Amino acid sequence: MKVGIIGGTGNIGEGLARRVCIGAKYDVVIGSRDPAKAEIAAQRVVDALAARKESGTTCTGGSNADACNVDIIILAIPFDKVASTIETLGSALFENKIVISVINPMQRFPKEKYLLPDQPKEGSAALAIREMMPASAKLITAFNNVASGKWMELDEVLDYSVCICGDDADAKKVAMDLVSSVSKLQPLDAGPLELSPIIEGITPLVITIAMRNDLKNVGVYFR
Amino acid sequence: MKVGIIGGTGNIGEGLARRVCIGAKYDVVIGSRDPAKAEIAAQRVVDALAARKESGTTCTGGSNADACNVDIIILAIPFDKVASTIETLGSALFENKIVISVINPMQRFPKEKYLLPDQPKEGSAALAIREMMPASAKLITAFNNVASGKWMELDEVLDYSVCICGDDADAKKVAMDLVSSVSKLQPLDAGPLELSPIIEGITPLVITIAMRNDLKNVGVYFR
Repeated sequence: MKVGIIGGTGNIGEGLARRVCIGAKYDVVIGSRDPAKAEIAAQRVVDALAARKESGTTCTGGSNADACNVDIIILAIPFDKVASTIETLGSALFENKIVISVINPMQRFPKEKYLLPDQPKEGSAALAIREMMPASAKLITAFNNVASGKWMELDEVLDYSVCICGDDADAKKVAMDLVSSVSKLQPLDAGPLELSPIIEGITPLVITIAMRNDLKNVGVYFR
Repeated sequence: MKVGIIGGTGNIGEGLARRVCIGAKYDVVIGSRDPAKAEIAAQRVVDALAARKESGTTCTGGSNADACNVDIIILAIPFDKVASTIETLGSALFENKIVISVINPMQRFPKEKYLLPDQPKEGSAALAIREMMPASAKLITAFNNVASGKWMELDEVLDYSVCICGDDADAKKVAMDLVSSVSKLQPLDAGPLELSPIIEGITPLVITIAMRNDLKNVGVYFR
């Protein structure tokens, strides 16, 4: 199976690319508005895996459209860039695709040491993105609450719980398999997409907890 | 210090009473609209502790007004009973008090196997309750996500993370000490009351996760 990452040159996007490749089950296409930048990021992934003598799978870079020519598309761009990105690409590229949103819109109040969700009127980024997609696209949220500082550091084991929500049972199963392939992440079925506001909200909560309790890279475990 | 539990005859309320007494740092007053019922619940707490040869502290039963004549008032009633309960008691009873809400309003969709938050227009039960209280009351959320099935079972160690949010730093510290006294719960400063919608929302999420992943008494850990 092939995974494409739109916004794959950001920290979370490139970290995801590394982690998915190292799992050795999925080929990865890193997408960017600037394909040259994506190729450089892909080469960094290949080098990082080679440096660790990991076999991995192939990682290539290309345009965001290239990153849509896959089985699973991961959206790893800021929420305020989603609408224009989909409009530029054309929503037809998303027909019948499994689309994973890792996006958590947040408001930051650094002086007061807290963050809040900054969700659109639809209730969550995922619910809003669903409206921007063709009806045949299967939107899923996953990976939302993984501590962003740990994605790139391949020495760090990721053993967090990962809430998966979405409205298509088969697509959810595919997303859960993808999550399982990454380090020691534990995928959990978290119901329909209606629960995405809570899942996206956990990210500003964990960052607030980290800031206020002198913790680093706080993640979440459901047990 | 004295802790009063409004709605102390419910499962969570009585479980809280047991756990707080067994911590041996706080005397507990169980409150109910029916004081006779509260006295019976308090006697059950005393008996449960005696059966385990735990020393504990005193636990008495009385009216909901008696449960307000304390240092820390815990609200453990359903959200739709809060407004009428405060109106009946008179909001003066809450002047200068630390008030802890453990309330999570939820909508249940058992056939579809999920739950959603059912939050009022203020954003959360806690934010709505803040409006019902005198300005001098210090409202806190705590204990919201502790698996309700475990409160009463004193053999069960509670080692969950407990998010504490509120707008008064001193009151928050008092609440964090109270949480620390219960089993092995880990209190975490989760910022101002504005974060309460997320914290209350985690409860329908964990119940959904339990229902869909064949798990029992799912709780949350932030690490």
